[in-house]
Amino acid sequence: MCPRFKQAFDLLGKRWTGLILRTLCGGPRRFSEIAAIIPDMSERMLSERFRELEDAGVVNRRVYPETPVRIEYELTEKGRGLHPVVEAVQIWADEWLPE
Amino acid sequence: MCPRFKQAFDLLGKRWTGLILRTLCGGPRRFSEIAAIIPDMSERMLSERFRELEDAGVVNRRVYPETPVRIEYELTEKGRGLHPVVEAVQIWADEWLPE
Repeated sequence: MCPRFKQAFDLLGKRWTGLILRTLCGGPRRFSEIAAIIPDMSERMLSERFRELEDAGVVNRRVYPETPVRIEYELTEKGRGLHPVVEAVQIWADEWLPE
Repeated sequence: MCPRFKQAFDLLGKRWTGLILRTLCGGPRRFSEIAAIIPDMSERMLSERFRELEDAGVVNRRVYPETPVRIEYELTEKGRGLHPVVEAVQIWADEWLPE
């Protein structure tokens, strides 16, 4: 098994990661926005996935020094490289899965 | 969140599923062949993932009435529809992940 492919799916094959990535494909988001878009996922889980995605260099956490502080999550260039994967999943889902 | 996309990642976002799909992209395989290609995965887990993939109509279990019986797992048409997803992950992995 290709080690790189395995590494990629160690990241992508975790629950919620695909949905988080799709949400960020639409641009930077706040934590609360993502939590609202994926209601079944706990905030503790979202924090955990963000840590993993930041460690993997796929997501960047941007802090705006305003009052109150504003924090946004965005895809890095490496993260934006996953757009084709997200699109390919969407195309398959639209063709093969019931509404 | 698109319900179809969520359904797709409920399937794909499970540990080992991506690796199993990639293995079957190369053609039908026996259980033992796949278990050997993905050594870190238990056989109990492989059986569980196969049941899920069969239920989802992505994998077909073909029994050859020989002696001894020969059983192979193969992608269905719906399963082969995931080739672009597997390829997109491979392309990303080759570009962004260390060997």
